[in-house]
Amino acid sequence: MPDTNRRVLLKSRPPGEPRPSDFEIAEAPVPKPADGEILCRTIWLSLDPYMRGRMKDVKSYATPVEIGGVKVGGTVSEVVESRHPDFKAGDFVLGYGGWQTHHVVRAGGRLGPFGPLKLDPKAAPISTALGVLGMPGMTAYVGLLDIGQPKSGETVVVSAAAGAVGSAVGQMAKLKGARAVGVAGSPEKCAYVVKELGFDACVSYRSPDLFGALKAECPKGIDVYFDNVGGDVLTTALRLVNPFARIPICGIISQYNATEMPPGPNWAPILVNRLLVQGFIISDHVSRMGDFVTEVGGWLREGKIRYREDVVEGLAKAPEAFIGLLRGRNTGKMLVKLA
Amino acid sequence: MPDTNRRVLLKSRPPGEPRPSDFEIAEAPVPKPADGEILCRTIWLSLDPYMRGRMKDVKSYATPVEIGGVKVGGTVSEVVESRHPDFKAGDFVLGYGGWQTHHVVRAGGRLGPFGPLKLDPKAAPISTALGVLGMPGMTAYVGLLDIGQPKSGETVVVSAAAGAVGSAVGQMAKLKGARAVGVAGSPEKCAYVVKELGFDACVSYRSPDLFGALKAECPKGIDVYFDNVGGDVLTTALRLVNPFARIPICGIISQYNATEMPPGPNWAPILVNRLLVQGFIISDHVSRMGDFVTEVGGWLREGKIRYREDVVEGLAKAPEAFIGLLRGRNTGKMLVKLA
Repeated sequence: MPDTNRRVLLKSRPPGEPRPSDFEIAEAPVPKPADGEILCRTIWLSLDPYMRGRMKDVKSYATPVEIGGVKVGGTVSEVVESRHPDFKAGDFVLGYGGWQTHHVVRAGGRLGPFGPLKLDPKAAPISTALGVLGMPGMTAYVGLLDIGQPKSGETVVVSAAAGAVGSAVGQMAKLKGARAVGVAGSPEKCAYVVKELGFDACVSYRSPDLFGALKAECPKGIDVYFDNVGGDVLTTALRLVNPFARIPICGIISQYNATEMPPGPNWAPILVNRLLVQGFIISDHVSRMGDFVTEVGGWLREGKIRYREDVVEGLAKAPEAFIGLLRGRNTGKMLVKLA
Repeated sequence: MPDTNRRVLLKSRPPGEPRPSDFEIAEAPVPKPADGEILCRTIWLSLDPYMRGRMKDVKSYATPVEIGGVKVGGTVSEVVESRHPDFKAGDFVLGYGGWQTHHVVRAGGRLGPFGPLKLDPKAAPISTALGVLGMPGMTAYVGLLDIGQPKSGETVVVSAAAGAVGSAVGQMAKLKGARAVGVAGSPEKCAYVVKELGFDACVSYRSPDLFGALKAECPKGIDVYFDNVGGDVLTTALRLVNPFARIPICGIISQYNATEMPPGPNWAPILVNRLLVQGFIISDHVSRMGDFVTEVGGWLREGKIRYREDVVEGLAKAPEAFIGLLRGRNTGKMLVKLA
């Protein structure tokens, strides 16, 4: 049993883009599980855009990370010591262990999507519990189906289309009979989205004429715009929406590093086109977990949903990988492999 | 029988605020009803902010008025000649006769809220069919109850609170057990909203500290913001919304005269607070007509809903009254009395 817990702490709050110096790698003793708790050794750490929000000291839907605190994050771990009857050493669990090699969690309290959830490595690769079968996949599922409600023959546009959420959104839209159009950065990402994931089209947001490019791929207008980025892509999509279009607001990557909140698009299209715009946070929708696991798990087993993982090795690489994630460097689900 | 139909035509499209010279008063022969049609002499013409949109030559949810065409608008008229078995001379009808003294309408085709609907002058003053028991009242009803869904104890804020829609929104919110806070212009309007209509509070949008003033009247935050105006009031309300607040988007009076679309508020609160923002146009909701007439008609008879009418006399005064309406000069439902 190792006696050192390596951790990444929040050292300072970045005013804009996070810098490597905002993170600090530190060591602490491996914690000991009390009665009812389990000690977990992390195998996979998930990196997600929402973590930028936790670095800010502002009121939001979740508590910020304290200066000197361990950065939060979803994890897949192996149980190394259990003091709970439902778990034994060697079990794999999904949890919220944060950016560290070890953590202890009270297993009796909160079993479910945010407490330790036992994973069956034969059912699916355990890393998918952080991606297509985890929070990002469920975010795509709930946002698209419950808010977006695409109908057969409609057009669904999704931004950050090569990312963990966006890549699932477009594939689910296709499975529901809609036309799926992605927006991504590089030509490589756009090619991946169309050729590997099967979207009907993908447009680069760096296009000199984003409006023209997106319009050409949406000849019947946009019925669902699943927004992960805000900014210019949102403004452009609003110029192409059909009456009664739905706009799930899932993320605003374009302004997570902003020091001042830029103005948004004019709201006239919301009225004129009778749009439904709805923000959502997946933790409000745990009641949909069962449906999600059943339906998306089925699609995955049948090969109807594909996914890619973008993996860096070692906790020390997490800060740089996270900075790259916010710059859009990753393709697919961003993961840190710890052990 | 008069043989002259006086009409107000759209003479030119105003780039900004409409000018008297954008309207032209003209005469035409009184039209003759064909078989199945009725000839109506207008008593009340409704003036509504949406009419500004019809003066623009841009794609919207409705066709613009042509240059030289009669301005459109809701009317309450008396039937002067009927060639339809369901109507007789002397009947009062709600219709969409436009800014003119006479019009002919096919009575057989489209009976209902937008075709000729016979009014019972004993049930309610016939002018209310253009106000609290008509399109503005139903706009308040559907937007507040179906989209806003206020719960007892919640706080509902409505802008243009002294107008035809806003005054109904706040009173309905009270009837549903919510705290009603209006936003209006002048101190006189604010006093009217509180003392005559029974809102809990009303704040002037001209307040030097609108945020502070609105916050003081919404100590538990805002759960429903019914937006008639956009602009600064919308931006301020977004700073005070509670998680899961609902924002029915009914109008954008602040920018109807704008020559360029200004940017809107930042969308971060939509995500962080999981807001539902939904634009609506009342003509999409005719299925709610029966419920509206039953429930609001009942409230009116029981004295639970009050209303005021702001009346100018004579068709020639319509352009000036309409320009004033866009400037927020009216209190209550703006009407032109023609006969």
